[in-house]
Amino acid sequence: MKKLMNDPRQIVAQMLSGMSHALPFLSFDRQHNVIYRRDMEEKVGLVSGGGAGHEPAHAGYVGRGMLDAAVAGNVFASPGPDAILEGIRKADAGKGVLLIIKNYSGDVMNFQMAAELAQMEGREVESVVVKDDVAVPDSTYSTGRRGIAGTVLVHKIAGAKAESGASLDQVKAVAEKCISGVRTMGMAMTPCILPGMQEVGFTLGKDEMEIGMGIHGEPGVHRQKIVPAADVAQILLDKILADLDYAGSEVAVLVNGLGGTPLMELYVMWDEVYRILGDRDIRIHRGWVGNYMTSLEMAGCSITLLKLDEELKLLLDRPSMTAAFPVA
Amino acid sequence: MKKLMNDPRQIVAQMLSGMSHALPFLSFDRQHNVIYRRDMEEKVGLVSGGGAGHEPAHAGYVGRGMLDAAVAGNVFASPGPDAILEGIRKADAGKGVLLIIKNYSGDVMNFQMAAELAQMEGREVESVVVKDDVAVPDSTYSTGRRGIAGTVLVHKIAGAKAESGASLDQVKAVAEKCISGVRTMGMAMTPCILPGMQEVGFTLGKDEMEIGMGIHGEPGVHRQKIVPAADVAQILLDKILADLDYAGSEVAVLVNGLGGTPLMELYVMWDEVYRILGDRDIRIHRGWVGNYMTSLEMAGCSITLLKLDEELKLLLDRPSMTAAFPVA
Repeated sequence: MKKLMNDPRQIVAQMLSGMSHALPFLSFDRQHNVIYRRDMEEKVGLVSGGGAGHEPAHAGYVGRGMLDAAVAGNVFASPGPDAILEGIRKADAGKGVLLIIKNYSGDVMNFQMAAELAQMEGREVESVVVKDDVAVPDSTYSTGRRGIAGTVLVHKIAGAKAESGASLDQVKAVAEKCISGVRTMGMAMTPCILPGMQEVGFTLGKDEMEIGMGIHGEPGVHRQKIVPAADVAQILLDKILADLDYAGSEVAVLVNGLGGTPLMELYVMWDEVYRILGDRDIRIHRGWVGNYMTSLEMAGCSITLLKLDEELKLLLDRPSMTAAFPVA
Repeated sequence: MKKLMNDPRQIVAQMLSGMSHALPFLSFDRQHNVIYRRDMEEKVGLVSGGGAGHEPAHAGYVGRGMLDAAVAGNVFASPGPDAILEGIRKADAGKGVLLIIKNYSGDVMNFQMAAELAQMEGREVESVVVKDDVAVPDSTYSTGRRGIAGTVLVHKIAGAKAESGASLDQVKAVAEKCISGVRTMGMAMTPCILPGMQEVGFTLGKDEMEIGMGIHGEPGVHRQKIVPAADVAQILLDKILADLDYAGSEVAVLVNGLGGTPLMELYVMWDEVYRILGDRDIRIHRGWVGNYMTSLEMAGCSITLLKLDEELKLLLDRPSMTAAFPVA
């Protein structure tokens, strides 16, 4: 299929090389496909990562106020424990390291193995697992709910806390609080194609969408005919709001594109989300619209709601200096 | 075709409504499809705009340090003079207004008509026309070169100058300097589909790309088989470097996605651009990679080079606070 690439086996490394050349605050460890901060501070280190193909996740979230290192596997494949261990080493400034893991079996296994290897080196390592996707209870690659776009808000919250000089336990605690209040639900309209493959991973009918599809094309809840954006927003939010009581809360909202959806359509979705939440007396403290956790060129979107308290609001509003999530 | 939308006739208005709800520093004039700053300052006002479908252009560039108002027409259709006049009124703080126009016949005609209407109201209005696309000398919708992604850098440079308290003449002069040193060349791999249409505007063979295609799908230079990213970058840069002598210069670089290209591929392109410019002794002062001037869900990219002097470097590095071009 049509891709701007050279050797598909080198696409991840070359992408990361490009990022590090474009962003002067990033360094790139080519041997392990780790992107890390050039100006690491003396604070709790934050590491995330996973299979590539979800750009800007996770390297786009490395920088002041968010992650210290991101470890990329091949496209849709978990990085190995040795690469993750290297990410931990890069992020360890002597105050301990927190791993933020999306809930996929491969990632959980490899990140935990890396944590044990790092502990054997005398490093202090803790981890949290993000399971924000309310679509399905278990999935092709996960036991329990999948971790998707809500992970970006966990990066932001934990990053701001670490930046404030908090201890590893405190950073972990606020990440857990964020995880307990974040929910995401998505939908897809077109498949994606892995670099080097000639065929799509699945097909969808010409007028079909899949509700709850995963960011690797894993099966969702059901397929149906495409409906207007107002109804899509209602379907996604109904599922989220049935899962956690947000009434009377303040929330952060992320309307996330899966890679191939024009920004125009994402802003239309935002307009619907804004209307529906207003009707439900849920107040939006802050929101983001764009491509944050993608699936190559898949068309579709997800909606994330994060329930906020005063601490989370303050942390969300702290400045961050990253490629894909700058907060001024 | 598959779109996240409601009524295609209302998609532009609803997108702009969504933007204004998502971004607290933006106001929306629903009658004229104008997005403008809520906190207009006493300085030269900057207005841009054009047909919708190129998001985040131009509303995503409204904010401190860039534009004061953006006027959107229907998808790929110029806004009318009355709407542009309203944008001028919103941006006019008594210090004069500069219009930044992409070179398409409809835009040039309507913006100039609006400028005359504004002058009849006693307003001071000047305009500049961006013609950065080196692909073709004339095009379907333009006499002379088309204005494309380089326009974003003109917004940034002129915006920073206006923010510094410069006069209308000074802001216009620096915009002209920027225009004289900015060149862009693009390519496309897939067509886009206008909201409400059932068919694509053109077709490209399964393994074909079009070099120099316009952001409305207008014909480019030639079609050929897809080649590796290294060769695509070479083809695009060769055309730019043959047009203006950048040897020994410092430049700003924009690797722009047309909407449907994964960020992964844009960073691969950046890596190639970085390599080629290094070989030519052209130093990158600052760069951006992402979707800045799109064509709905078209897959493809463009490369923009802006020749810098000390003044332009300073202006480029000044902070800006907009949805799509934040500089900290």
